[in-house]
Amino acid sequence: RLPDCHYQPATYEQATEARAQRDDHVAVRWPRLLVCSRPRGWRVQDISTTTTWLREEDLSWVRERVPLVCVDAVPVRLDHLGQVEKVGLLLRALPDGTVSRAIVTGRILRDETVREALWRHLTKDLGPDCDPQLPASITPFTVVEYFPDPHRTGFHDPRQHTVSLAYVVPMNGDCEPAEDALDFAWLTVEEVTSLGVVSEMSQGHDRVVRHALASCRRLP
Amino acid sequence: RLPDCHYQPATYEQATEARAQRDDHVAVRWPRLLVCSRPRGWRVQDISTTTTWLREEDLSWVRERVPLVCVDAVPVRLDHLGQVEKVGLLLRALPDGTVSRAIVTGRILRDETVREALWRHLTKDLGPDCDPQLPASITPFTVVEYFPDPHRTGFHDPRQHTVSLAYVVPMNGDCEPAEDALDFAWLTVEEVTSLGVVSEMSQGHDRVVRHALASCRRLP
Amino acid sequence: RLPDCHYQPATYEQATEARAQRDDHVAVRWPRLLVCSRPRGWRVQDISTTTTWLREEDLSWVRERVPLVCVDAVPVRLDHLGQVEKVGLLLRALPDGTVSRAIVTGRILRDETVREALWRHLTKDLGPDCDPQLPASITPFTVVEYFPDPHRTGFHDPRQHTVSLAYVVPMNGDCEPAEDALDFAWLTVEEVTSLGVVSEMSQGHDRVVRHALASCRRLP
Amino acid sequence: RLPDCHYQPATYEQATEARAQRDDHVAVRWPRLLVCSRPRGWRVQDISTTTTWLREEDLSWVRERVPLVCVDAVPVRLDHLGQVEKVGLLLRALPDGTVSRAIVTGRILRDETVREALWRHLTKDLGPDCDPQLPASITPFTVVEYFPDPHRTGFHDPRQHTVSLAYVVPMNGDCEPAEDALDFAWLTVEEVTSLGVVSEMSQGHDRVVRHALASCRRLP
Repeated sequence: RLPDCHYQPATYEQATEARAQRDDHVAVRWPRLLVCSRPRGWRVQDISTTTTWLREEDLSWVRERVPLVCVDAVPVRLDHLGQVEKVGLLLRALPDGTVSRAIVTGRILRDETVREALWRHLTKDLGPDCDPQLPASITPFTVVEYFPDPHRTGFHDPRQHTVSLAYVVPMNGDCEPAEDALDFAWLTVEEVTSLGVVSEMSQGHDRVVRHALASCRRLP
Repeated sequence: RLPDCHYQPATYEQATEARAQRDDHVAVRWPRLLVCSRPRGWRVQDISTTTTWLREEDLSWVRERVPLVCVDAVPVRLDHLGQVEKVGLLLRALPDGTVSRAIVTGRILRDETVREALWRHLTKDLGPDCDPQLPASITPFTVVEYFPDPHRTGFHDPRQHTVSLAYVVPMNGDCEPAEDALDFAWLTVEEVTSLGVVSEMSQGHDRVVRHALASCRRLP
Repeated sequence: RLPDCHYQPATYEQATEARAQRDDHVAVRWPRLLVCSRPRGWRVQDISTTTTWLREEDLSWVRERVPLVCVDAVPVRLDHLGQVEKVGLLLRALPDGTVSRAIVTGRILRDETVREALWRHLTKDLGPDCDPQLPASITPFTVVEYFPDPHRTGFHDPRQHTVSLAYVVPMNGDCEPAEDALDFAWLTVEEVTSLGVVSEMSQGHDRVVRHALASCRRLP
Repeated sequence: RLPDCHYQPATYEQATEARAQRDDHVAVRWPRLLVCSRPRGWRVQDISTTTTWLREEDLSWVRERVPLVCVDAVPVRLDHLGQVEKVGLLLRALPDGTVSRAIVTGRILRDETVREALWRHLTKDLGPDCDPQLPASITPFTVVEYFPDPHRTGFHDPRQHTVSLAYVVPMNGDCEPAEDALDFAWLTVEEVTSLGVVSEMSQGHDRVVRHALASCRRLP
C-alpha cells in the first residue's frame, strides 16, 4: 500500500528534517517513491505509521531521552594498492545561511543493520551510481560522540546526543551530490587537511576526517 | 532536589527493569541514594523527570522506534605481557526460571560518554573494587547488533534492537557479583569456549566472547 | 641488465624455494621474464646480485638470525553490503606428499612496502586477473607469529620465525591457481570452519581464517 | 655458559649499537650480567654465538637483504576512564650532536614474541619500575614502514628498512630514562602536537605520535 501524502509549507529546518525523514522512509519502504517529484521546501506529513519513521515531534521526544545511533562515512578514492588518493566532501547550505563542507552521516533506523544504513546514506547523498565498497569488517575506525555541548568532546550536534560509528568507504562509481547538497568534491589529503578547507567544516567533521586519514596512515 | 520515592510491588521483569533504571538513575544523579535500603523486588516509580532516566512505558515507546545504543564488556584477567588468562562471566537468573551466563552489558544514557557507560556498568555489575582498566582506544573490537528476530544476525534481544559497542576490559581488582547476579566466575579460554559453558549462554553472548578472544588472538 | 640464467636439477624443496625466489625476483625487477618458459622443477641460480633476492644459503643464514616479516592474505568474496560470502583457499602439495589447503602468504622484500607485497603475492598466487581490493587501512586484523616450535603460539613454520601481518582482502576478479598450486576454491563460512576443511589446513592457517572471520564478525 | 667478554674502544655509533645489542643479548640470555659495570663507550665483542644476538657486521649484512621487524611503543598516562592524559617522550643525543625527542622503539629478536619485545624495550628504556600495561589485543594501531629513502613513506631510518608494529602502552609505574637517554618527559596532548615539540622529533616519530593519538580519538 502506498502512503497517502499531504504537503504543507515548512520552515527551512522543518523541510530539511522532513526531507531526511522522507528519504529514510522512502528508500526503505517504497523505493518507487524516489522518482515522484515534490515541491521543494514542502514537507511530507503523517505518511505512515511505520515504526522506523518518526514524526518530527516524536523524534524530538526521543532525542531528549536517549542517544541516537548513527553512521559517519568518509568517502575516499583509492589507488590500486589501496592507498587513499582523494577524500570526498559534500557542500551543504546550513539554516543560518552559511555553507559548510561535510562527510556523509545519518541515523541507523529501527530494524536496519549498520551496513544497510551505510549503504542507504551513501547512495542517497552521492547518487545511485556511487558504488560504495563497504569494508569486510564492521568495526568502525573510531566512535564519534556528538553532544549538544560543543566542549564535551569537540564533536558537536546542537539537536541531539549522537553515538556515531565512523567508516572510511572507498567509492568506485560516479558520485553526484543529491538534492539537498550544493556540491560534492574530491580533495587531496593536503587540501582536506589545509586550514582553508578545515575552516569550512563544522560539527567537528574536520577532526573526523583527520582521524579517518590516521586510520589509513595518511595523516600529514 | 532529592526525588520523591514511591514503592509498589512488581513482577520479576518489572523489578529487574526498575532496578536497572534505578541504578542508572541513582549512580548518575544522586550517588547518596545508593546507601538507602529498599524492599527487594519492589520498584521505584516516578522518581524523577530527568531525561536520562526512562519510565518503563517510555522506554517501551522508544524501543519500538529507534535502536538503542549499548556497551558490551568482556571482563578479562591478563598476565604481565597482556595475554588473556581468564574471561569473567556473570551468572544470572532469567525471568523464565532458567539460569544463564553473561557478559556485562547495558545502555548508554543520554549525555553519557561511552567510557562513562562502560565504567558505570562494570562497577555496578562487578562491584566498586573491580578496578576496570578501560582501554586507551575507544574503538570497539566489534559492533554487536542484537535484533528481536533471532535469525537476523544471530545476536538476539527479544525486547529491542540494540547496537552495542563491544570491548575487552582487563580487571585489576576484586570482582564480586552485584545484587541481581547469582555468581561471577573467572574461566580459562578453554573453559569459556567449551560446549558446556557455551550452552549456558544466551542472546549470542558466547559468540561475543569468541569474537573478543579473536581480537586478542586467543581463539582456539 | 637482464640476468644470466643457469638451470640445474633440484629437489622438490629447492625447486619450490627457487620458484618462490624467482617469482619474487622476477616480478619486482624484470616483469618481462614472467613469460619466459622454464623446465618445471629446475631452479634459477645466481641470477642476480640484487639485494632483494636471496640465494637459498643466504636466506638460511638470515632465518637463523632474525624473524622474517611477511603478509598473510585471506581472500574473500563480499556481497554489495560488504558481508563475507566466501573464503578462498589454495590447495597445495607439500614436500612430504600430503596435500594442504592454505591462505596466501609470503615475505615482504627489502625496499618493498606492505601494500606492494600484498599485491605481488595475491596476483602471483591467484593470477593477474584476480583484482584484489586492498583495504584503505594498513592496520592488519591481527599479527600472526609463526615459530619453528609448534607449541609456542600454535602458529607453526618449521623453517623460520615469522611475524606476519594478516589481512582480509576482497577479490573482485577471476581467481586462478598459479603454477605451484593444485587448486583454488571458494568456500562458504560454514564450510571453511567445518572439521573437514580445518583438518586439511596446516601451520595454523585454519586459526588464521577463524580470526579473519571474527574481524568481519562472521565467526559462527 | 657465561660469555667471555672483551672490550675495546669504539665510536659513538658503535658504542650505541653495541649497547643496544648487549642489552638485547643480556636481557634475554643472561639477566645477571645487567648488574656488571662496564666502561661507558666501550663495546662488547664476540660475546656469544647465540643466534638472537648479531655482530655489527652481521647486522649490516642482514639490513641490506631483508626488512627488519620492530615494535614502536608510545607510552601514555590514562585517567580512570582510559582517556589519554599525557604522552611520554625520551630525549636522546644523536651521533651528529643534535638532540631529539623519541618514542620507544626496537627490534624483535629471533625467537622472541611481539609482547616480549615490547616488554623488553619498555623496561629497558623507561626503567624496571615503569610497569607497562600491555594491551589485550596484539593488533597494532598502525604499521610504520621506515625506509632509508626519507620520501618513500615519510618515516625514515637511514640505516635500514623497518616494518614496525606500533602500540599505545599505558604506563602505571615510575618511568626513568635509562642509560642512553638524556631525559624522559610526560607531555600533554597539546604540547606533544605543538610545533615546538614536533620540530624536536626525527624519523617521523611526531607523525607516529599523531597517529597514536588518533587511534585514541585524541587528535586535536
